[in-house]
Amino acid sequence: MLTTIAVDAMSGDHGALVCVPACVRFLREHSDARVLLVGDEKELGRLTAGTAGLESRMDIVHASQVVAMDDSARDAVRHKKDSSMRVAIDLVKKGDANACVSAGNTGALMAAARFVLKTLPGIDRPAIISAIPAVGGHTHMLDLGANARCTAEQLFQFALMGSITAQEVHRLEQPRVGLLNIGEEEIKGHEIVQEAAALVASSGLNYVGFVEGNDIFHGDVDVVVTDGFTGNVALKTMEGVAKMIADLTREELTRSLFTRLQGLTAMPALRSLKARLDPRRYNGATLVGLNGIVVKSHGGADEVAFCNALETALLEAHTDLPARISKLLQEQPL
Amino acid sequence: MLTTIAVDAMSGDHGALVCVPACVRFLREHSDARVLLVGDEKELGRLTAGTAGLESRMDIVHASQVVAMDDSARDAVRHKKDSSMRVAIDLVKKGDANACVSAGNTGALMAAARFVLKTLPGIDRPAIISAIPAVGGHTHMLDLGANARCTAEQLFQFALMGSITAQEVHRLEQPRVGLLNIGEEEIKGHEIVQEAAALVASSGLNYVGFVEGNDIFHGDVDVVVTDGFTGNVALKTMEGVAKMIADLTREELTRSLFTRLQGLTAMPALRSLKARLDPRRYNGATLVGLNGIVVKSHGGADEVAFCNALETALLEAHTDLPARISKLLQEQPL
Repeated sequence: MLTTIAVDAMSGDHGALVCVPACVRFLREHSDARVLLVGDEKELGRLTAGTAGLESRMDIVHASQVVAMDDSARDAVRHKKDSSMRVAIDLVKKGDANACVSAGNTGALMAAARFVLKTLPGIDRPAIISAIPAVGGHTHMLDLGANARCTAEQLFQFALMGSITAQEVHRLEQPRVGLLNIGEEEIKGHEIVQEAAALVASSGLNYVGFVEGNDIFHGDVDVVVTDGFTGNVALKTMEGVAKMIADLTREELTRSLFTRLQGLTAMPALRSLKARLDPRRYNGATLVGLNGIVVKSHGGADEVAFCNALETALLEAHTDLPARISKLLQEQPL
Repeated sequence: MLTTIAVDAMSGDHGALVCVPACVRFLREHSDARVLLVGDEKELGRLTAGTAGLESRMDIVHASQVVAMDDSARDAVRHKKDSSMRVAIDLVKKGDANACVSAGNTGALMAAARFVLKTLPGIDRPAIISAIPAVGGHTHMLDLGANARCTAEQLFQFALMGSITAQEVHRLEQPRVGLLNIGEEEIKGHEIVQEAAALVASSGLNYVGFVEGNDIFHGDVDVVVTDGFTGNVALKTMEGVAKMIADLTREELTRSLFTRLQGLTAMPALRSLKARLDPRRYNGATLVGLNGIVVKSHGGADEVAFCNALETALLEAHTDLPARISKLLQEQPL
């Protein structure tokens, strides 16, 4: 039995030029997967010509519109009902696909996914969750930007969803859940974080208490819960620091002929480091809390990165993540 | 005319064992500075013995108590009136010192400083500001943890204080001020950030708009303004990412004899990089918005790092930063 992924093949900075080759790569690596390429059938037909042997697992579903990066979420939902993004989500709703992936506009994707799929019973708002590199593996963090403000109850729901994702999709037993907070003495966070802590502590989750920004990377916590404002700033901050360090390393290593030679000899080790921290490995954030699986790829994703987002969707489809979350919610004494 | 810095010599992880040598180093480098070492006179007397030639610029002021890292801010203010931290702040209040520096408990320092020095007219709450490494120099960021929640007016006050600090202390002309926000389409931040943006945009500041977490390091903005919760998480996240990358680099470079040799040859370049990003260079965060200069050193600071905090205090004393902020506030059509 094949697992079907609906792919918004027209979105992202490179559109079908990246999505199609990524799907080909993905299908070659996963013989149990099938892909529905959603978008302009002519363009997709041209790009898929010559992918011998994959025809039976790759179909094109025509969509006449594309959601632009600057379309408002509202306009995308109201006026782009035949967009590649929307049709991909509709395929999940109709049961024709087990999950969908899009590299499009996050706001529009979130709005369309909520509108079409609805949130799970007991979940107020979906959140964005992704793996973040950490010492000895990775940490799962949410919300990465869907909800600028959250109530304590919402943070609690995020904790439940993060824990079940880490456990069921990533096979961590009893995931350690932490609430992101600040450690200054006078001002140990605000009341919402304090209230959320009480809720999480009295649940069946493996709650390890408050964690701070640096703890995300220490490997002492598996799930880091925060509101979408803080989570998004932390995520972008990580990306910014990593990029600055990479740029400065390159600058230092190419400063003179002498350091250039040094750099050359150190390259294999630095390349190995780069591979371990490669942001493409971490591409694929899930809109969790919906009645269906929706994975968001980075807009600038290349073939390797987009393929990783497809793999995230496949893993979650194998687990039937929304059903697992529903089950855990029903077991909670809310 | 000497500039006098009152130093809480008993706080931080290493107490006087780091503070005293750091002060000696500082005085040797700055012939226009004088230090008041506040703390146990016996211990300080012993540690300062043999610092020939500096006697005239280094005096001991006795204090019988020390604020512990786990003292609550309230207890520190009420029951530790003869602590090295409090006496150092009192010296600023009395005009016996131009600034003070402490590596103690941030919450206690903030509470005692507010209690003794009071905030400047027009400032609701002090904020914590520090330089952050960025491409081509550094960025000034506030609030780094004093105020978990902020109003739009407070964020506006932070923008004013950050701008004047960058301009007067760090000699940047027309500092570019940005408000930290998230860029997702549906949810461009929350209403407080939006209101703050309107206030900053209509002021005389060189407002460049919203910036995201990664922009802190790009060198396109000089002052990044946010609430203390987000700012503290971003700061700790930076520290965590940088440490993880340093640890992984070490691991990669010492993985085998071969990579060990590679690492050895690359060391000078990597050392130069490490020096540029050395967190000790950025030690010394200012509690800005008070009627006096209070600089917080990292608790784990070593001699070099603590010396940098002393230099921050000296720079701000030379500028008379609180007076500059007051003047700017009076000029604002509030």
